[in-house]
Order: sequence, then structure tokens, then C-alpha cells
Amino acid sequence: MGTENFDQYREDTPGRANVADTPDRVAYYRQLQELGTGALWNVANKIEPWEPVSSSVPMLWRYEDLRGHVLKSLDLVTPEEAGRRVVYLENKGRADVVAAVGWLYSGLQTMAPGECASSHRHSASALRFIMEGSGAFTNVDGQKMTLGANDFVLTPNGTWHEHGVSEDGTICIWQDGLDIPLMNALEANFYEVHPDLQQAVSYPVDAATGTWAGAGLRPAGEQWTKRYSPLLKYEWAPTYEALQNYARVTDGSPYDGIMMDYVDPNTGGPVMQTIGASMQMLRPGEKTKAHRQTGSFVYQCAKGCGYSVINGQRFDWKERDIFVVPAWMYHEHANASDTEDACLFNFNDLPVMRALGLYREEALGENDGHQPTLSN
Amino acid sequence: MGTENFDQYREDTPGRANVADTPDRVAYYRQLQELGTGALWNVANKIEPWEPVSSSVPMLWRYEDLRGHVLKSLDLVTPEEAGRRVVYLENKGRADVVAAVGWLYSGLQTMAPGECASSHRHSASALRFIMEGSGAFTNVDGQKMTLGANDFVLTPNGTWHEHGVSEDGTICIWQDGLDIPLMNALEANFYEVHPDLQQAVSYPVDAATGTWAGAGLRPAGEQWTKRYSPLLKYEWAPTYEALQNYARVTDGSPYDGIMMDYVDPNTGGPVMQTIGASMQMLRPGEKTKAHRQTGSFVYQCAKGCGYSVINGQRFDWKERDIFVVPAWMYHEHANASDTEDACLFNFNDLPVMRALGLYREEALGENDGHQPTLSN
Amino acid sequence: MGTENFDQYREDTPGRANVADTPDRVAYYRQLQELGTGALWNVANKIEPWEPVSSSVPMLWRYEDLRGHVLKSLDLVTPEEAGRRVVYLENKGRADVVAAVGWLYSGLQTMAPGECASSHRHSASALRFIMEGSGAFTNVDGQKMTLGANDFVLTPNGTWHEHGVSEDGTICIWQDGLDIPLMNALEANFYEVHPDLQQAVSYPVDAATGTWAGAGLRPAGEQWTKRYSPLLKYEWAPTYEALQNYARVTDGSPYDGIMMDYVDPNTGGPVMQTIGASMQMLRPGEKTKAHRQTGSFVYQCAKGCGYSVINGQRFDWKERDIFVVPAWMYHEHANASDTEDACLFNFNDLPVMRALGLYREEALGENDGHQPTLSN
Amino acid sequence: MGTENFDQYREDTPGRANVADTPDRVAYYRQLQELGTGALWNVANKIEPWEPVSSSVPMLWRYEDLRGHVLKSLDLVTPEEAGRRVVYLENKGRADVVAAVGWLYSGLQTMAPGECASSHRHSASALRFIMEGSGAFTNVDGQKMTLGANDFVLTPNGTWHEHGVSEDGTICIWQDGLDIPLMNALEANFYEVHPDLQQAVSYPVDAATGTWAGAGLRPAGEQWTKRYSPLLKYEWAPTYEALQNYARVTDGSPYDGIMMDYVDPNTGGPVMQTIGASMQMLRPGEKTKAHRQTGSFVYQCAKGCGYSVINGQRFDWKERDIFVVPAWMYHEHANASDTEDACLFNFNDLPVMRALGLYREEALGENDGHQPTLSN
Ligand SMILES: [Fe+2]
Ligand SMILES: [Fe+2]
Ligand SMILES: [Fe+2]
Ligand SMILES: [Fe+2]
Ligand SMILES: [Fe+2]
Ligand SMILES: [Fe+2]
Ligand SMILES: [Fe+2]
Ligand SMILES: [Fe+2]
Repeated sequence: MGTENFDQYREDTPGRANVADTPDRVAYYRQLQELGTGALWNVANKIEPWEPVSSSVPMLWRYEDLRGHVLKSLDLVTPEEAGRRVVYLENKGRADVVAAVGWLYSGLQTMAPGECASSHRHSASALRFIMEGSGAFTNVDGQKMTLGANDFVLTPNGTWHEHGVSEDGTICIWQDGLDIPLMNALEANFYEVHPDLQQAVSYPVDAATGTWAGAGLRPAGEQWTKRYSPLLKYEWAPTYEALQNYARVTDGSPYDGIMMDYVDPNTGGPVMQTIGASMQMLRPGEKTKAHRQTGSFVYQCAKGCGYSVINGQRFDWKERDIFVVPAWMYHEHANASDTEDACLFNFNDLPVMRALGLYREEALGENDGHQPTLSN
Repeated sequence: MGTENFDQYREDTPGRANVADTPDRVAYYRQLQELGTGALWNVANKIEPWEPVSSSVPMLWRYEDLRGHVLKSLDLVTPEEAGRRVVYLENKGRADVVAAVGWLYSGLQTMAPGECASSHRHSASALRFIMEGSGAFTNVDGQKMTLGANDFVLTPNGTWHEHGVSEDGTICIWQDGLDIPLMNALEANFYEVHPDLQQAVSYPVDAATGTWAGAGLRPAGEQWTKRYSPLLKYEWAPTYEALQNYARVTDGSPYDGIMMDYVDPNTGGPVMQTIGASMQMLRPGEKTKAHRQTGSFVYQCAKGCGYSVINGQRFDWKERDIFVVPAWMYHEHANASDTEDACLFNFNDLPVMRALGLYREEALGENDGHQPTLSN
Repeated sequence: MGTENFDQYREDTPGRANVADTPDRVAYYRQLQELGTGALWNVANKIEPWEPVSSSVPMLWRYEDLRGHVLKSLDLVTPEEAGRRVVYLENKGRADVVAAVGWLYSGLQTMAPGECASSHRHSASALRFIMEGSGAFTNVDGQKMTLGANDFVLTPNGTWHEHGVSEDGTICIWQDGLDIPLMNALEANFYEVHPDLQQAVSYPVDAATGTWAGAGLRPAGEQWTKRYSPLLKYEWAPTYEALQNYARVTDGSPYDGIMMDYVDPNTGGPVMQTIGASMQMLRPGEKTKAHRQTGSFVYQCAKGCGYSVINGQRFDWKERDIFVVPAWMYHEHANASDTEDACLFNFNDLPVMRALGLYREEALGENDGHQPTLSN
Repeated sequence: MGTENFDQYREDTPGRANVADTPDRVAYYRQLQELGTGALWNVANKIEPWEPVSSSVPMLWRYEDLRGHVLKSLDLVTPEEAGRRVVYLENKGRADVVAAVGWLYSGLQTMAPGECASSHRHSASALRFIMEGSGAFTNVDGQKMTLGANDFVLTPNGTWHEHGVSEDGTICIWQDGLDIPLMNALEANFYEVHPDLQQAVSYPVDAATGTWAGAGLRPAGEQWTKRYSPLLKYEWAPTYEALQNYARVTDGSPYDGIMMDYVDPNTGGPVMQTIGASMQMLRPGEKTKAHRQTGSFVYQCAKGCGYSVINGQRFDWKERDIFVVPAWMYHEHANASDTEDACLFNFNDLPVMRALGLYREEALGENDGHQPTLSN
């Protein structure tokens, strides 16, 4: 703010600030600065934009590029040294907050058979989406869950958690998703290491799914007052089956094809208070139209191949590739196959948008709903 | 109230009314009567009992007794004449309000292949639990659903509905459950015949289950603001599977064994605002302990055989038998088999109790939780 | 049901039951009776009416008729003998359940200076509306509240309560309103006498109003999770002032004039789960139009004079008169004065109607919204 | 991230990252950078702190320092040029986002008689707290409200609003509070100028208070489904009276004295979804103990004088001074007078903390709850 030019955001529109610098005014602005203040009209047009312009950029990380590096970390660091052995994804526009997009963090974690990370908890909400390997498990507040490819599992805000791979498993890789950047931005991030470094298994293995995975059913007498889903683990097989069942009775969304949100069966609401997640299926040959939303998205291709156009830029993806859609950027998806379906997992901060009354959505009206793609 | 004795409810307990008739008082009471009034102390102990005493009695209806009579109605009346061809269950204590227990109505309905009842709607909430036959269907607000044995289906308050059996089906029998008596008692019962007598099928058949039967999943973008479950149909196979899954990870309830409530996946709450329903499984050899609850229950045995002790009276049941537990009566259940599980379906008015802040539950403390049974 | 005529409710309308008795059928009906069953078509049209027909009748009780009798009870019984010294209002159609209308009980209670009734609690929700006298008080769960004319005070479901008149007060009369009949009908009525017969005063007198009577304000840090209003007492002066303020900025309701519902400041919802209450002001000369609602109403004139037409019958009222409007009966109100406003207090069971999804309202379309009045 | 040192955040604690740079690792980190990725263990301890450390600093702005400069803006810019004539408060640690503290913006606005700013709307929620002058008004979605000193008024997310001073008023100054920085951070900020630049007055003046300011009362039949308070304006006189009433029946909070939250009478919840506000009274001589909370606070002294100790630093305040408490910093307040009470208004982002499950509070345990103050 030490610049000589105070009037750099002027707009010549009724209702907007439009005050030219004059010697009197500039003298006044300097006085204001000394008092820990400023003239709103010099920054009003900057801090009150007509619509959001995300500081993130659309990006795609190819799994074939990352996989080797992720595995290499097995040789470079132990889980004890590293806490967690993770390669994180860094958005070009968000390196300062270590975010993959917006306020969402994502990384790829790998563990070898017999390894187990120490137990801890934090304000950040976390999820895992399993990419490869067998024998992975997580323990959330004493609930041990076994994990396979395309399973989606929660470790909500404040829960003790640890994860590992069983002795008879194989090297595993999974995607971590967290809202660490948001928790830091909101100055509400607390962290604790478990006093025993490992926590006990207090329930039968996979008790959560045994208890809460009956559709339209809930265990009589079970109380659940926490504000995250008691189901904790969402397995791939029933998720994929649900998408196929839904496809038989719906035309789907013009923007997202056949899409289901993972929800808390106790409330019908999002799985956690600050992170939502969905799985969508693009039918053979399906090409969706473009829309944009407040909120940021991290996608992973769970099945098949195709491409997405984000803010006019085309990104081709296949299984395990990860890409991000920043807030209020148009995006549309296409399945590249005419015979196989393609599935995209995503996690997002829509629960934040909705809880604060900020969710908006807009379809692209022109060009039959499709963005002109820029040359790469 | 024309009796000479006004003081028949006296109790000699501090805090309770205890006013003996005297000539002065009786003269006074007669004056009050003429004014459309009365002295509270003469009725206070009657209208403020120490605890509820249900006007219903425990009863069991054996399917083998009823089945022939239900089928006989096929010859006696047409659906057109009868509206619905139903034999209703009449509680000895509730004949005045045509209730099976408390404020709950139940009946057995039969239809032959090719028959279809006319479409109508009412304030009473209704459900159907399929007992036998193939080809049954129901159409609720344009959603046609196919029905098989042990399927549970809703026709909520205010929805247009009709039901029938397809041409290629067999004679079907199902149990109807409604809160007609409650709607009449609350003076809120409205009834309408569909202007076209039949309604259109506006969705793919079984769209509700295709859309809403994914556990922990909800169709992205689908709005559902009605206060009853969009799932509408709860099929037997996934219900039974959920009970078995739950049994693997829980000890179950000492009073109810392995029990799941049917719920609205949109909210996690009861399927309708005035009627709840549950399915419970008694493991081989299981004998539960006694408890009592506010609220009335209509049970149907969906699988196996056993007995229940209700208010000290033993009722033996096997598949398709129906019995009722009146409010605040102790009840306990036993599976008669040491090798097969037994399943009991029930519907009840617990949502009313809970919505009005009246739900209470109490375990029997004495005799290790088991009622002494009276001789029959 | 021992009658020879089973077909007395036939209706010759498509979709309604219309089955004539025949010897075969009558023989069948007799067999059904022996099994604790019946043929639905014989009662369907009776238990599924086109619209509610209340079993209550509109009635008005003139205070000048009742007051002397109420006071006479001071000589006839002590509070210790009577529990509470109350003359209850008995609807001609509801004597069997001791209701003033529908499922609502009402009575006039009187106490002399220095008297105090014993403490107790029950499932029935209760309210008091003060009619005359000074020094009345009530103690609800340790919160002692002082009461004056037209004050409205709650004693919700499950709260310990006692009431009395201070030594330096005068003889007091107030109206009690309760849902005792509903609690009995729902078989959920429990009653307990306080182990000490009197309860302690655990808070500063009138703590509830001191804490919760700031409009648009709530005490920071106070937790309130109970499902009834923590305000407990609604005083007349601010209520009347609020009506006048509202009158300055609204045209009011064509059916109810200037009307405010008493609410729970913690939720904005009704004061108790099963009883609601309102105060309405008819401006000088105001005559409202007729409408009808599900739910029953007990009115007391708190100020002024006028008349109401209920189901075509005119009832003239003045201060302290009490009248009732049964469910689904048209009613309209008129202020008899062209210079003074008139105020009507009412309590009702609308919270039950709303909690169960049964609320309906309908305006009278014909005759400019006014009922033709029958000769008295 | 181009630094040679990757291991600058190491912690020698079990469960925390502790990986020393080695040539192999550094080479690996460089490869990761090229792929738009990084090694989590190098930043984990930084982005997962043990507890929040706010980037804001405690600050106080004295009104006597600011007032002259605020008034000077009357000569320097017109409302037409400036949009709004406001001097904003800039936290030393938050100049980049134009925040007074955390994600909260605040400014002092001045208008002269006859001036009126143009109508607009935005995603940011706003409030005004009147500091001096007469004749100020605001129009929110057609509801014109008159404003006096210490009145608190809302212009919620998405509402059209404009404000001004009537011709017969005096120069007015008020404090604006908004969450502009949060809306920008969440990339959800939209802005629109009203098509007519001014909006109509569609209701009687001060209709909101006439309708919704009855304590424990709500206008019968009025629907309000928006997620902000329909009361809109909270006047000083009833607020101060409520504080005094509350003081008579409570000991108050050890940390905040007599404190009331402004709430939405329709729900009992916060006035807007993203900003809360409270008024607290420190009784003569009162000195509170220290506590800390997630969430940021902007205070204005509304009455009296005293001081606050924030994170060990003492700030003396008197009427109209403004100061801020950053997240998770201990703070305690003292009234400097032994005869007069002192009142502090504050607005904050607690509704965000609560909606996202992030609210925490902690009392200072040591030193009898008082912070040692640092020398200034
Ligand atoms: Fe973690
Ligand atoms: Fe999309
Ligand atoms: Fe029906
Ligand atoms: Fe039970
Ligand atoms: Fe009582
Ligand atoms: Fe009315
Ligand atoms: Fe604005
Ligand atoms: Fe505080």
C-alpha cells in the first residue's frame, strides 16, 4: 500500500467507486495509513468483485507420472520419520497454503505391508480414496476398517485415527483429501498425537458398515449425535451398483450424468461438516454440458477414461488420474468410450458453501452448453 | 354423570383428590352440571392416572384361521363394490374405533389377478406388508412399484394411491396398516376419490428404489422436501441381509434382539410422520427380556416361529400370524427354534410419541427381566 | 356390532363402499366377528369420512354465571382435600373424556391468600391464564413466577409445579388449560406427586422473564435443550404493546385481525410440544371473515366485548367469558365496540396438528366470507 | 519453495515429521516440484500446528483519532464518486485482505443530511452500528428503518440495500461490519448494482420491529423461511433494558459479565449465517477473567470506559473506541468505573465456527484467570 497510485481500481459505472487521486486526497490517504486505516473507495472495487475469480488454476496430475515417485518415498523415509509418507499435490495458484485447489489439500500416500502410522487427531476433516494394493486398513476412534480399491473412508474432525497395511497385504497407495488449508485459514486448526501413539481396536472389524449400511434402515436404539456419518466407509461395489440402478430409472443430470452424493445415513446430509464427496458415472459416449458452482472440486477417475473441459481448457484423464476444478469455473465431462462407462470420484467443499448460505450454480447458456476449447 | 355417587375416585394419598360427598357438596355438583361444568376433584384421580392403562388388550390372530375367510371375500364382493376387499382386525377393547390396537388399524386385503382398486387419497397414513402371492403392485403418486412377500411399502398421508395384481400374477394377500383411528380421533381425516378413478404411471417402474436404495448415497440434485420417505418400498432381501450383517457386529438389544427401524433416507427419521416400522431378527434360541414403551405395536411374523409374552400372557406365533402389544405393556419375545432365526415385522405409532415428547421406555427389573406367565 | 344391519354406511359413489347385505354375506360377517375381525366395506365409509366432523359442539361459558360457583368452592373444599380447587368446563359432546373441546381440558381454579397446592408433575402439558386477583404465583421446576391479570404461564410436560397465592394477596381465579384428554387418549399419561409435597425456589423470582424476555436477544452461553419455552411466563403488558406495534405496520389477517402466537424464544416454535397459544386484537369495529382449521381452540376474552359466529351460531362474549371452537368449524369474530379494541386469548392443539403433518386451513368462499347465522 | 533448505519445520516429537535433508532426498524433492507436487513431511508440521496462531494482531482504534478524518471525507469525495464514504480499519497482519481482524472487515462511514448511497447487493453479510448523528436510515429489501445511536442493523447476504441521512438529520457516523474478506477467501463473492440505483420503500417504515420485536411472540401466519433474522434492526433502548433485567437474575459469565447475543427471533439462532453479534455489560467495578475462543471479534465500546487485556497487552477504551480480538487469543475486560456500567458491542464470526463444527473455548487456568500484562 506504499504505492503512489491509490486509484488503480476505478470503475466508471454508477454504484462503483471512481475517485481519482488528487494531491489533497493522496495527502489524506497517507494520514489514514498512519492510523491503521484506509479509504474504502480505493479498494472497494477490488474487494467487491462482480463475481468470484478463483486464485486456483485447473490442473491434472497423471498417475503414470506420479506413481513412481510415490513408491520411491518408501525407500527415502520411514513412516516414523515422516509421520505420513505422502506426496502432496500443489496448485500453481495455491502453493502458499499447500492446497490442490481452493482450501482443499490432497496427497498420495503409500505404505508397505506391516507398516502402521501413529495415531493422532486434528480439526481438519480427512478422507481416503483407495487407489491400489491390498490389506490397507484404517482405525477411526477404535473402529478398524479394511479397505480396497475405490473404497472411500472418512476420518472426521476430531477423531483419533491411524492407518496401515496388514502384514499379508501388498504395497498400497491411496489419495488423502483434507481441508487443512481451510482450517488454517479459519485459524481453528488443532493437532494432537495420541498419548499411546497407537489406539486400540474397540469394535468388531468393519462394525460401521455392518451397522449402518442397510439402505433405508437404521439400527434400532443406536444413538448417533455426532455431526458426521457413522457409516465411515463407503465401499466401491455397492456404490457402483447404486449408480447402475439409478441409471435405469433416470435420465441423469445434463451436467454430471449419473451422480450420487455420499451421505450421512443418520441425517441424509453430507458425510462431514466441511467436506462432501460424490461418485458419478458417465454412460458410454456421454458428453455433459458445462456448468459452474461456488465451491472447489478434486476429482479422481475411478474407472474408464475421458476428458473434462475446465474454463475452456481440455484435460484428458484415465483411471487414477486426478484433476481439480476451481470455484466458479465452467466444467463439462466426456466419456471417451462408446462401450464402457467411466466413473469420477470427487470431494469438495460444498458443505461449507451450503452451511454458510453461499452455494450457487449456473449453467452455460450459449453454444448449446459447451465451452469453446482453447488450444493447449 | 347422573349417578348419586360423585366421590368414587377418591385416593387417600397426599397430593391426590380425596373429597367425600356431603349434601352441600352434592347440591353444588348438581348446580355445576347445569352450567356445563363439574368439580375437578371428583374426576381428577380418574383422568390423571399414575401411569397409562391401555384400553386395548393383547391379541393374536392366527393366519391359518383367517386365510380362508380372507380368500372367501373374493367370491362375496368385487373391489368395485367394496372399495377395498379387506378383513380388518378388531381389538376387543377398541371395537368402537375399529382399531387392532391403540389408534392403529390393520386388515388383510386380497386381490385376484387383473383386479385393481380405484385411486384415492386420505389423511390417514398407510402401509402394506406383503403376505403371499405374486404380481401385486401399488401406484403411489404415479410411482408404480412391484411387490413380493415380506416387502414393505408406504402410502403416506395425502398421496394418491391404488393397488392391484397384474394379469399374470396369482391371488395376493397383504396386510394393511393405517392410522385411520388416530386421524378420526384427531378430527383431521379427509378423503378424496381420484377424479379419474385411476392414476397414470408417471415414472419408470420401481423408480423409487432405483433412486433412493443406495446405502449412504443420495441422488445428486434430487430435491425431496416431503415429510415421508422417498424410498417408498423396502424390499425383503436387502432388509434380511442388513439384519444378518448387523448381527455379525453387535450383541443386539436385550429386549429386541437384532432390530432395524425402516427410515427415511432423506432424513434418517421415521418413514412417515405418524407411523413407524421395524424388522427384528431373533437368533436361534434367543429369548429376550421384557420392556414396555409408550406407543402401540402391530407385529407380523415374517419368518420362523416362536412366542411372545405380553402383559404376562403367552402368545405362540408362526409365519404370517399377527399380534398386538398395547401401550405400556411389558413384552418379551422368544425364538422357538434352536437352528433357524425368526423375524418379526412391526408397525407402530412411535413417531407420534416422539414428535409430541411422549416416548418412554422401561425395562422389567425383577425376575431377571422375565414376566411370570399366567396360565392361558 | 350385534345389529342385523351391516350395510348401514353404504354410499352410491364410485370409489366408496357399497355392499348390500345378503344372507351369504351376513353369515360371513358373523363368522368374521367370531374371529375378532370384520369386513372393512361395512365400516369404511364411516371411518373414512369425506372431511372431519367434530364430536365437540361450540359452547360459551359466561364468567358471570361461573364466578360465584368458582368462589363457592373456597368454602366447600380445601386445596389439601381437592388437590386443586377447580371447576372444569365440560363440552356437551366430550363429557366422556372431560374435555372443553376436542382433546383439550379447561377449568377455573381459585385460591385464597396463603394457600399453596402441592407440587406434582405429569405428562399433560398445562398453562394458566390469570383472570382476577393479586398475589398469585407458580413455581415450575424451582422457578417462582409472580402472576397478574392476563398473564399467561406454562407448566410443560414433565415439570414439577405448584401454585398458590401469597399471604398479602387477594382471592385469585385463573383459567387452567391442559391436554389431559389427549394424554389419556394416547395412553401416555404419567403422574407423580413431589416427594416433598413442596419444591424449593431455586432461582431468583421471575428469573425466566429476566433472562429470556429480551426481544431478539438471548443470554450468551445459556444452554436450553428442552422442547418447551424457557420464557415460561408471558406478561400482559408487553403482549398488548406488541399487538399495538404490529397493528401500526400490518393490515392484519382477514380472519383473525391482529394476532400473535406465543412462542419459544429459543426456537421460534410453539411454547410447548402439544399446546399452542395466541393473543389477538380486534380493532374498533373490526369484523373478521370466516375460516376453519384442523385443531381445537379454547378462547377467553381478555379485553373488551364482541361476538363470534361458530358453525353458524352466534356467541356474544365480554371480558373473561370463555368459548370453544371445535375442529374444522367455520368461525369469525367481531368487536362490538367502535371505539375500543377487544382482545381474545386462545390455546389450542395446533402444535399437534403441525407436528403430525395434519394442519389444514380453509376460508369460507361464499357470502363474502361470512356465515349465515342461525337463530339461537 | 525454491529454498535449499527443505527440512526447516522438523520437530523431534513422536508422531511429527522429522526428516533431515540428504542429497538423495533433496534431489527427490526437486523432481516432485517439477510435477506440481511436494513431500508432505517437509511442510506437515507447518500446516498442522499444535494450535491456531492468528495472523491478526490485537489493535485498538481511538475514536478521537479517527473522527476528524472520517468527517474530512465529507469534503473530499461525494457518495456518488466513492460508492460509500468509508474509512476502513486495517489490521497490521491482514492488510492483504483488507480485514480489521481475521476475515472480518470494518469501517467508519459518514453521510450528510440529504445524502443517500445507491442500492446494491452482495454475498457479503453486513451490519451497521450507529455511532453518532440523527436521521440515519437504511432500506433493506424495501424495508426502511430509522436509526439512532447504538442501534444495530442488518443487511444480510443477498439483500438489496441502501442507506442515507434524511434532510432534517445531522451528519451521521456509523460502523460498518462485513465479512467481505471471508467471501473473497471462499471465492463466493458476487456483487450487483440495483438496476434503478435506488429501491422503493415497500413497507411501512420500521415494519420489521413492529412485526418481530415482541419478545416471545410472533406474528401469526407470517412465513419467514430466509436464513437471517426478520427483525433486521435491534434498537439500543430495549437492548440495554434487557441487559439490566438479566443482571437482576444472573451472576453473569466470569469471562463476559452480563452478555446477550443478538438473535433471529424466528429460529433463536444467529442474526445472519456468517456474522454474529452481542452486547455485553460490565457492572461497576467488574473485572472479568480471561478466556479464548476460535473466531475473531470486533468490539466497539457503546457506553462507559474500561480496558481489555488481549494476549497480555492492555488496551484502554472509552465510548466509540473500537478494538479487535484475534482468534484463540486470551482476552479479559474491566470496567474502569466503580459507579457506572460499561457496555461493549461486538460482532464476530462465531456462526461460521459453529456451522462448521469448529467452535472451541478455553478459560485461562493459571494466575486466578488473569493474564500477566506486558508493558506497553
Ligand atoms: Fe490425520
Ligand atoms: Fe459438475
Ligand atoms: Fe387408501
Ligand atoms: Fe420391544
Ligand atoms: Fe398439574
Ligand atoms: Fe381463526
Ligand atoms: Fe453493501
Ligand atoms: Fe469473551
